[in-house]
This record gives sequence, structure tokens and C-alpha cells, in this order.
Amino acid sequence: MSERIPVAVLGATGSVGQRFVQLLANHPWFRVAEVVASERSVGKRYRDATEWRLDAFMPEDAANLVVQDYGDDLASPIAFSALPGEVAGEIEQRLAREGHAVLSNTSTHRMEPDVPLLIPEVNADHVAAIEAQRKNRGWSGFIATNPNCSAIHMVLTLKPLYDAFGLDAVMVTTMQAVSGAGYPGVPSLDMIDNVVPYIGKEEEKMAEETRKLLGGYQGGAFVDADIVVSASCNRVPVRDGHTEAVSVRLGQNGVTPEEVLSVFRAFKGKPQELGLPSAPVSPIVVRCEQNRPQPVLDRDTERGMASVVGRVRPCPILGIKYVLLGHNTVRGAAGASILNAELFKVEGLLPV
Amino acid sequence: MSERIPVAVLGATGSVGQRFVQLLANHPWFRVAEVVASERSVGKRYRDATEWRLDAFMPEDAANLVVQDYGDDLASPIAFSALPGEVAGEIEQRLAREGHAVLSNTSTHRMEPDVPLLIPEVNADHVAAIEAQRKNRGWSGFIATNPNCSAIHMVLTLKPLYDAFGLDAVMVTTMQAVSGAGYPGVPSLDMIDNVVPYIGKEEEKMAEETRKLLGGYQGGAFVDADIVVSASCNRVPVRDGHTEAVSVRLGQNGVTPEEVLSVFRAFKGKPQELGLPSAPVSPIVVRCEQNRPQPVLDRDTERGMASVVGRVRPCPILGIKYVLLGHNTVRGAAGASILNAELFKVEGLLPV
Amino acid sequence: MSERIPVAVLGATGSVGQRFVQLLANHPWFRVAEVVASERSVGKRYRDATEWRLDAFMPEDAANLVVQDYGDDLASPIAFSALPGEVAGEIEQRLAREGHAVLSNTSTHRMEPDVPLLIPEVNADHVAAIEAQRKNRGWSGFIATNPNCSAIHMVLTLKPLYDAFGLDAVMVTTMQAVSGAGYPGVPSLDMIDNVVPYIGKEEEKMAEETRKLLGGYQGGAFVDADIVVSASCNRVPVRDGHTEAVSVRLGQNGVTPEEVLSVFRAFKGKPQELGLPSAPVSPIVVRCEQNRPQPVLDRDTERGMASVVGRVRPCPILGIKYVLLGHNTVRGAAGASILNAELFKVEGLLPV
Amino acid sequence: MSERIPVAVLGATGSVGQRFVQLLANHPWFRVAEVVASERSVGKRYRDATEWRLDAFMPEDAANLVVQDYGDDLASPIAFSALPGEVAGEIEQRLAREGHAVLSNTSTHRMEPDVPLLIPEVNADHVAAIEAQRKNRGWSGFIATNPNCSAIHMVLTLKPLYDAFGLDAVMVTTMQAVSGAGYPGVPSLDMIDNVVPYIGKEEEKMAEETRKLLGGYQGGAFVDADIVVSASCNRVPVRDGHTEAVSVRLGQNGVTPEEVLSVFRAFKGKPQELGLPSAPVSPIVVRCEQNRPQPVLDRDTERGMASVVGRVRPCPILGIKYVLLGHNTVRGAAGASILNAELFKVEGLLPV
Repeated sequence: MSERIPVAVLGATGSVGQRFVQLLANHPWFRVAEVVASERSVGKRYRDATEWRLDAFMPEDAANLVVQDYGDDLASPIAFSALPGEVAGEIEQRLAREGHAVLSNTSTHRMEPDVPLLIPEVNADHVAAIEAQRKNRGWSGFIATNPNCSAIHMVLTLKPLYDAFGLDAVMVTTMQAVSGAGYPGVPSLDMIDNVVPYIGKEEEKMAEETRKLLGGYQGGAFVDADIVVSASCNRVPVRDGHTEAVSVRLGQNGVTPEEVLSVFRAFKGKPQELGLPSAPVSPIVVRCEQNRPQPVLDRDTERGMASVVGRVRPCPILGIKYVLLGHNTVRGAAGASILNAELFKVEGLLPV
Repeated sequence: MSERIPVAVLGATGSVGQRFVQLLANHPWFRVAEVVASERSVGKRYRDATEWRLDAFMPEDAANLVVQDYGDDLASPIAFSALPGEVAGEIEQRLAREGHAVLSNTSTHRMEPDVPLLIPEVNADHVAAIEAQRKNRGWSGFIATNPNCSAIHMVLTLKPLYDAFGLDAVMVTTMQAVSGAGYPGVPSLDMIDNVVPYIGKEEEKMAEETRKLLGGYQGGAFVDADIVVSASCNRVPVRDGHTEAVSVRLGQNGVTPEEVLSVFRAFKGKPQELGLPSAPVSPIVVRCEQNRPQPVLDRDTERGMASVVGRVRPCPILGIKYVLLGHNTVRGAAGASILNAELFKVEGLLPV
Repeated sequence: MSERIPVAVLGATGSVGQRFVQLLANHPWFRVAEVVASERSVGKRYRDATEWRLDAFMPEDAANLVVQDYGDDLASPIAFSALPGEVAGEIEQRLAREGHAVLSNTSTHRMEPDVPLLIPEVNADHVAAIEAQRKNRGWSGFIATNPNCSAIHMVLTLKPLYDAFGLDAVMVTTMQAVSGAGYPGVPSLDMIDNVVPYIGKEEEKMAEETRKLLGGYQGGAFVDADIVVSASCNRVPVRDGHTEAVSVRLGQNGVTPEEVLSVFRAFKGKPQELGLPSAPVSPIVVRCEQNRPQPVLDRDTERGMASVVGRVRPCPILGIKYVLLGHNTVRGAAGASILNAELFKVEGLLPV
Repeated sequence: MSERIPVAVLGATGSVGQRFVQLLANHPWFRVAEVVASERSVGKRYRDATEWRLDAFMPEDAANLVVQDYGDDLASPIAFSALPGEVAGEIEQRLAREGHAVLSNTSTHRMEPDVPLLIPEVNADHVAAIEAQRKNRGWSGFIATNPNCSAIHMVLTLKPLYDAFGLDAVMVTTMQAVSGAGYPGVPSLDMIDNVVPYIGKEEEKMAEETRKLLGGYQGGAFVDADIVVSASCNRVPVRDGHTEAVSVRLGQNGVTPEEVLSVFRAFKGKPQELGLPSAPVSPIVVRCEQNRPQPVLDRDTERGMASVVGRVRPCPILGIKYVLLGHNTVRGAAGASILNAELFKVEGLLPV
């Protein structure tokens, strides 16, 4: 195990940070060697600084690490970032400049013109932007990002449709879990017997990230896909797992639910080809029961790394509609960054 | 009070039946004189036959009534029906034949060609179908119905748009409360930490009822409105109050959110003109906060008889989108039937 | 209405502060004339400073008030305090010194030897401590407090037992609503599909407040009742309404559940004698169904001002056990302070 | 794998039945060879007859089994029973008569004078009653039972106290998960924003089962332990995991929380000695955080087979109090029966 690559987790005491620590505990390629958090945690053991909110016990190795400061030099070549948006910008840039590969779950850099926003099954070719990024910015390391937790699962299901039939428009209504807002996050008075029909900036992110993710990287620049996205985002009393009701207008007329199911089932991407350790066997899992997917029953499908799809049926307005569900802190956050890191490793782009 | 018209409540021990009893307790025109339920309740006092699930105590007058059988002759000229679908058809028809005005919340007769499906603010002119119904069927009484709990609130908000701008298409995703399924209804294992993305027949009802409700009654027949409806219906862990994310394609291009808000705010219908006792002052109440409406905060607006609207904004696909919320067992069920009865009374159509 | 006594609400934008504003909106004796909150609200209209979390709209009169600073001089003779513990001490003392009657819901001063901790049905005679308090402290006004939200409902049910049979020991396990922790308060990640078996300082408060409340005021000093209290406090996913499982060892052996029910039903206190406007008709309401009281069904009994009791039965260890339920932000907080103020008015102790 | 002992699961489509199927899927000694359920499932594949309610997919082997009738002869020597109480009595007796080892989770036979009620860590010596049972009843097989889901976790924590210090009295208030009532079970209208302070027969079971479990088997008869138990049982909005607030009067005075913690931590029983495959390493796991155990965080400790204890502290009335949590459908039901079967196998008492 001593040859595993040491990694740092930034924002390690928070919700997504804890998920990084959990998912990396038995990772075959990486091991958590450094944990970084805000001032009030610095200098404490991770065990004492963290109110662990995941089931099962905190991994022993991480528990004994001493929490480092945002400003500290890091020894690990790789930094997974779950930093709050307010501080992420500067810290992530500094680390990239100093030679670290920064795999970030934060939204700050996602839409920048030389920062890849990656889902390895969808746009693995976007890693090419790293070269331009280093050159532009004079960095020896780099920043690569993964999408918002709602966008990533939707785009995983849109990708095979886009490739097979073309895609013009996507209407989506989300019913999102509270873990997406971190801890303490959403007050219980907002969630017991209630729905909150608004999540700040979420609808915008779903639109712009979808266009970047399904677009190309050509001539040294990202070219957005020409797809209109209309999102309505809601918070519901669910711990983990975002449910999304999606309607799509495809590039071809007359595509049937059976054809859609068929491309969903056949979908594979780079992580499956390469056999990346965190890759799900099937990035899209289809459920045939008429009342699935459901968060409590389906969110842990493929260890939380797949999108689960059901109720594929005609939409009398846009053509096809379906329901999707995905784990928002595994494939929707920490697991996404880790899968990105695995891709970079195989591509020989990690500074190790 | 002795001049109040005696009414019967069919299916009185169930969820919607209890709501009828509660809403009628202090009604100025009607009083509950008979309660009818299934075999296992017959012969008991209503107090003993009913597991009362509403807050506040059971109204004293109703509590002492002895529950009658489905097959009994009724003395009351008016029967409010909250019967289960399996038995409603025959019982409601017999009562109408025998001269009763049957105001039904059940779906059985809603789509029949001589049965009005009524929202008094929307299609009060459909009461004209009663005459044809009596003639066709040789009945001295009649059946009139109110819509499904999801459809009624949506159509209340669509009506002013339809009148002001025309309306081609409606895409809606619902997040529906569990009281819509009655008691015992939805198991708690399906609702704690969960969403169920399917409600049997609900999506079909929302489409067909909308077209009948916004259509005309011409030359002795209902003429459906030419509107495409695509619904995705979900059950969420909320007691009362259906939340719906709606996108509409209007008949005119370029309608702004401000224009939409303006017609929402100006909307009044027959119940407001006539001052019907159960009518809300405003059938549509607009909230301007970006995170409203919410079930716990807004479902009791106008005593549960209004639809509450918020987040009116452009939809890049269909033109306009918004969120609506309505109380599903008040305006969405018992309150709707009672408002219908009030309209019939003022129109002189009750058999009293 | 112009003769209603103007009152100030301290901490007016918070959970309990909002409840004060709501309960005082149509009060026959008092009207909200001043609202006071922390720095970030000062200078704004109450409407704009407050994220209103109660159903129904914010009362219009209060909505237009401009929020004042903690340090401002107040014109109102009465101040209702829902201040956070950290700041309450100094502010409440200053106002009392300056001549205001401070009716406080905060725990800071509750256990002081010259400050009455009052439940008018239980220990109305403790108002006598006001005279000593003024003298000791050289104040023209005074501070009077109401108990913790869990203690008040339990003590309301213990009082008639104590008087009728004597009382040695009380074992209680609470299942408390989240509104007791204010807003944002308890994170939803702690409450969806969960119970938290700990509430800071709550168990201690239930013990010490019970002894003061059931004790006497003799010779210018409070004398604690000699009762052992053992509390286990839990937070459960309920919005409003604390449920408590109570076992008691009475001063007499062989007291039957019927005798207990009989004293519960007969219980009346000073507020009922005096006909205070916020007084419940019955401070203890007994439910006979075997599965009651329940929060959603019973918390609004007597407008939230009563304790609801059920399942009175033998306890093989202590003698008698029962379940009680009470609204924690009405009788458990704001309503308690208001009832105290009403008592002081009738006693001629208000500075007006 | 072909040498694994074939077992039947009775009541296989229900909540506990599914848990049996799941826990046995990779069991080293047993394999599910037969599934038995009520009439409406008979003749269908298990996959089609069952609405699978556990996370992760249904085990493939079981999925393909054809559901058998309650009355069918069974080929498996062992039958795990999750039958509904109404039918369990007769079916279990018939199977025992015919030579099967019936390991039952149903309450029907638990308190009978020749039927062992077993927790292998607590009263493994009660297996001796099997011999008497066979003789009395002329059976070639036998019935052995496991306790109620609330009793089993409490008694696991009481056993080391009883052995170390003696035990006179136990006061317990439970906050029980809905999965304990099966599916559909508790209606969501009873659980959203609510607590139900009553569970039929639960309080009685906790008392009588505790006395049998901690009692002896001497001279061919069970001798109850002389312990008074007072239980108050509540249903709370939690999926899995019963939380219990316990106070105990020990046989010795002055026992400290530290001494209690010490015996909790040291506790081991027969399953640990024998290394039974389903045995937890530690039957009691102690958490030291002041707000633990919590259902979402702790119910899966030791794969759901341990009781988790926290907040051990003095009780001013009975001496010691603490909070415990246990998974109610794993160690509280199916897992308990399986552990019993493992004990019987090692003891050589299985008919194989």
C-alpha cells in the first residue's frame, strides 16, 4: 500500500470533504496524506476537528492526521478540493501554480475558458485544455473541475441521446437532497413537511454546465453545444439522492422510448474502457418498475457512481421524458473528482 | 340556523369525507344531516366510526350522527361524495336518479359527455350541461364533479393566461402531498427520506381534465380546448399542499413575466362576483419572495381555497415558467365540491 | 383599540419573536409598538428584516415598524423578550432598571433568587418576589420569566398531582420539536430519518425549574419543592409540539389512573379564575384514545395554550405514567410570557 | 457452495422476509432454497411476487425461486419464519412436527413454557428446552424464537449489568422506527411531522420477554428473572433503528457510569466465543460523543448486529441511565433468527 499516491483533501471537515475521505479510504491508487480545513480546525487531529456525518466509522488513517491550514505548503502532488466557494479561487490557483494537480468540486473555476469541466464518460477529450491552461497561466500544476451535483447526473443521461439522436432542448425539474447544501446547510424547519422551490444559482448552473459538457474542445477552445436547457430546482426532504424529471427534444423526430432505453443500456465511456477503479460497470442503470427510481432504494446503485433511469415514455410536447436519480455526494461530488483523477493518472497527466 | 339546507356526506369517515364535515361545520347555507360510509361503520355514531385525522376536534353535530349505509335512501337534497372510485359510479347514479344533487369529488363521472367538471372561476357556464344530463338520463337530480387535486390548482392559474394570451402547451412536474392518497394511503416507508416518481393515472387526469375545463360547452356538448399537457407526477414527504413547477407556451410571443403577474393578480371569476361563501377573495395569490410558495407556509392562504403562485420567470423553451401551490384536500377536494354547490344554489339548480 | 398598552418585542425577528408578534396581533390589552433586533436588522422595516416562518401573513401593523437597536431607549412600558441568551442578561437588566416590565422567555435570569419563574396556573403567588427584586436591585421596573418549553408543559400536569397527592419523583423522556431550537436551528441532516438523543442543558433545566415552580415563596425567598427529576431529552423530526413520556412517584400509595384523570380534568388556576384573555379554558386537556396525544393532531388544542394528556396508566416502578404534549412556541414560549403579562396587569403590577 | 444447508423463508415477500433473503444471500452455512408466502404470491417467481424494499438489488438466486404455499411440504431442514402472527401458530407447529427446525421471528410461541426465546449472547443455555419441547409435543423438529425488536437490543445491554451488579428495575422509553411495523405498515400521514405514543402490545412484550430472557432454565422449566420493567413505546419518523432511553436500578448501590461502561465494553457471549458467522465482534458498541447514538449514523454498526450505547450517566431516581440504539430488522429480527440458527448448528441440534 506504501506506493499509493499521497493526496490532500481541501475542506476536509465538511460534507463533501468527509465523503472524499471515506471514498479514498480503500482506494487502490491514492491515499489521504493531508487534510486541510479552516482556521478553527487547524492543528487538531482530523478525528477531533470533524463531526463525522457518514454512517460507519471514520477511517482510522485519516482520523489521526493533523488538520493543516489553507495557506500551508502541501507535500501531496494531488489536491482534491471541497472548499467553500468564497475561498476556493485563490487557494486552488496557488496550489496549481505550485505544481499540484487540483481536482475541484467547487464551482469557482468551472466555466473558465481553459479549465476543463469533466465527466470522463462524456467529455474525456476536454483534458486537452490542461495544456493550454498551463501555458496561459504559467502553471506547473493545473485545475480540473467536475460539474454541479444536479448537472452531472442529467448530462450522464443526455450524452448517449445527444450522440445517437442529436439534442435540441431539455426541460428539467429537480427534487434535490439536503446533503447537497452541506452541513449545517438546510434548516430542518424548511424541510419537515415542506418543499422549497428554489436553490440559488442552481438553475443557471444546470444550463451552462450542460452546454459546456456536451460541447467540444476545438482549436484550443471550448465550443458550447447548442442546447437550450430550462431547469426548475427544488429542495425536498431527502438526505441523499437527487431525483430529476426530464423532458427532451431530440434532433430526430419519432424516436421511441424503446430506442432511448436501448442507447441508455448500451452506454459506456472511457472509464469503462479503461477500467478505472471508481468507474461504475454501467454509468446508466435502467429500472423497469413504474415507480422507480427512488432515492432510498436506488441511490447506492453501483456504489453511488451510476445514474439510475426509469419511466422512459413519450412527452407530448418535447418528445421523450424520463426520471433520473443520482447520488449527489458520491457521483455528484467527491466520487466525480476521484474518477477525474483516475483518468488523469491513466493519461499520464498527474505530477507524479 | 334551522333553515340551512341538510346535506349528506358520502364516504364521510375517510380523509376527504372528514374535510367535508369540517368545512361544512359552520357553513352559512348547508348543514351536515347525514353521513354515509361503508359497511363496517354503518350503525355507529360518526364519532365512534371515524379516526379523526384533522387538527381541532370533530364538530359536535356531526359527531352524533349515526352512519348510514351506501344503499340507504337519503333525506337530504344534496349529497357531497367522497366515495372510493370502486363504488362511486352506481351509488352516485342512483342518488341522482332519485332526485339528489350529487356534488362529487370522485373521478368516475368526470369525463362523461353530459357531466360538468367544474371550477366556478373557470367554466361556470358548463353548468348548462345539467339540463342535457337530466334529459338524457331521465334523472330528476344530477351529478356534477370537481377536478383532480393537481389539475384544479394548475387550471386556476392557466385560466387567466388562456383568456389573456391564448395557451398552446403546458409542461408540469408535481410534488404532491400524501393526504391526496387518503388514509392509510402512502406507507411511511415510501416517504421517509424518499420521493416516489409515480402516481397512478394522475398524469393522464391532468391532461384530459385541463382540456375539458378550459374548453367550451357549445350546442349541447363539451368542446375540448386545444392544449397539449405533459405531466410528471411525484409523491413527496409533505402532509398537505401540492407544489407544481409549470412551463407554458402561450398563444402570443413575447409575453413578459410582468404581464403574467398582472393577469394573475387581476383574476376574478363568478364566485368572487357572486360573493359565494367559500370563495377566496383572490383565487390566485402571488408571492414575490424568490423561495415561495412553500407548503408549510402557504397552503392555508385564503383558508386553503386559493392557488398560490411564485417565481414567474422566462422559460427558454416554452416562454414562461412559474411555481404554484395549492391545498389538495381543501380547494383540491372538499372545498371544490362545496364551492360548486354554492354556485348551483345561486343559479337556482338545487332541488330545494 | 387606541387604549391598548404599547409593548416592545425584543429579538423580534427570530422564531419566538415572530410568535410574539403573531399572538399579540389581535390582543385585547396589548399592541406591538416597538420591535428590537440585532444589528443587521436595525433600521429596516420589520417586514424586510424578517424571514417570516409562520403560516398566515405577517400582521400588517408590525410589518411597518422600523426595527430598533438593542441599545435604544424604549417608549413602551412592557418588553417581551425573546433575546438570545448571550445578550439577554445585560439588556433585560438595563430595561428593568429604567422602569420597564420585562417578561422574558430567555433562561438567563430564571433561576435567580429574586426573579419569579412563573406559570400563572401553578405559582401565581411567586409574583410577590417582584417587590424584593425592585428593592434589592434598586429598579423601577422588573424582570419576570417563564420556564423552558419542556418544563412548562410537564409542570402544568404535575401541579394538580402535587396538590392532590404529593409528589416525590418524576422520570421523563422528551421527544422535542425542532422549532424549540429556533431558526436556522437544527440542520435537516440531523432530522431526516433520525433522532438526536441530546439537547444541551435541557435535562438540567427540566429538573431545577420544576423544583422552583412547584416550590413556595416564603419569607422573601423561594423554597424549592423536594422533588427528584430525571430527564432524558431527545430531538425528533417534528415541527411544533413536544411529546413527553412521564412516570411519577406520588406522595401517596395506591393512587389510581382514574383518580389522576379526575384531578387532571378538574384542574383550574388563577388565569381561569381571572378570565385572562390568553388563558385556556382547561389548562390540561385529556384525550382518551389510546394513541393520543400526537403533535399534528393535538398541538393546537386551546390555541396552543393547553397541555394535552393521554395514556394515564399504572407504572410498575413509580406508580403512574402518562404521555403529555404541548405546543412549544405558544404555551412553551411566547404565549407563556403573554399570559404572565396579563396576570401582572390584573395584579396592578405593570408600570402603566 | 453446494454444501450450504438449504433453508426456507416463510413470509418471504414481507419486510422481515426480505431481510432474511438479503442476509442469507452470502451466508457461509445456509442458502435460501425455498420461499413461502401467502396465496396471492404463490406460483410466481420471487422476483415478481415481491416489491423489494431494501437498497441494493434482490439476490439473483432467490429472485428466481417460485413462491410456495403456506401448506406445502418443505424440503429444507430449516425454516426461518417471518409469518404474520395470525397464521404463524399453526404453520410453525406443523413444520416442527414434520421435523423442521423452525427459527421464528414471530411472537406467537415466544412465551410458551417449552419454547426457547433466545439471544445467544444472553441465554444460550435455554436451548436445553428443545429437548423437553420435542418430548412434550412428540415433534421430530422444534421451534425456537427470537425476541421482539425493542426487547432484544435492551436486553443485550442489560445482560452484562445483570451479571455484574444485579438488576431490579428498568424504565424505558422507546422511539421506534417504522420498519418494525412492516410494509405498508405505518401510514405516512401518521409519521410526517408527528410522533405516535403507542404501539400495540409492545410495552407488555418488553416486560415479559426481558424477564424470560434474563431468567434461567432449571429443572426443565424457565424461571423468570425478578426484574420490574416499565416501558413507554413510541413510533417516530425513522426508517430503521430503534432508539431507547433506559434507566436502571441495579442490585448494588453506588455503581458509577465508568463501571457500567467498563462492563459494556467487556461484554462477550457465546457467539463471540464460537466465532459464529453473523456474530458482531462486540455485541455492545459504546459511543462517547454526547449526542450519540443516532439512527442514521449508528444503526449499521457491526452490520446491524450490535447494540450501540451512549450517554451513560447517573439517574437521580434509579441510579444509572443511558441511551441505546439497535437495528430493528437486522439484529432486531432476521439477523437474530439467523444467529440462533448458527448457534443450533454448532450445538449439533439442526436436523441435518
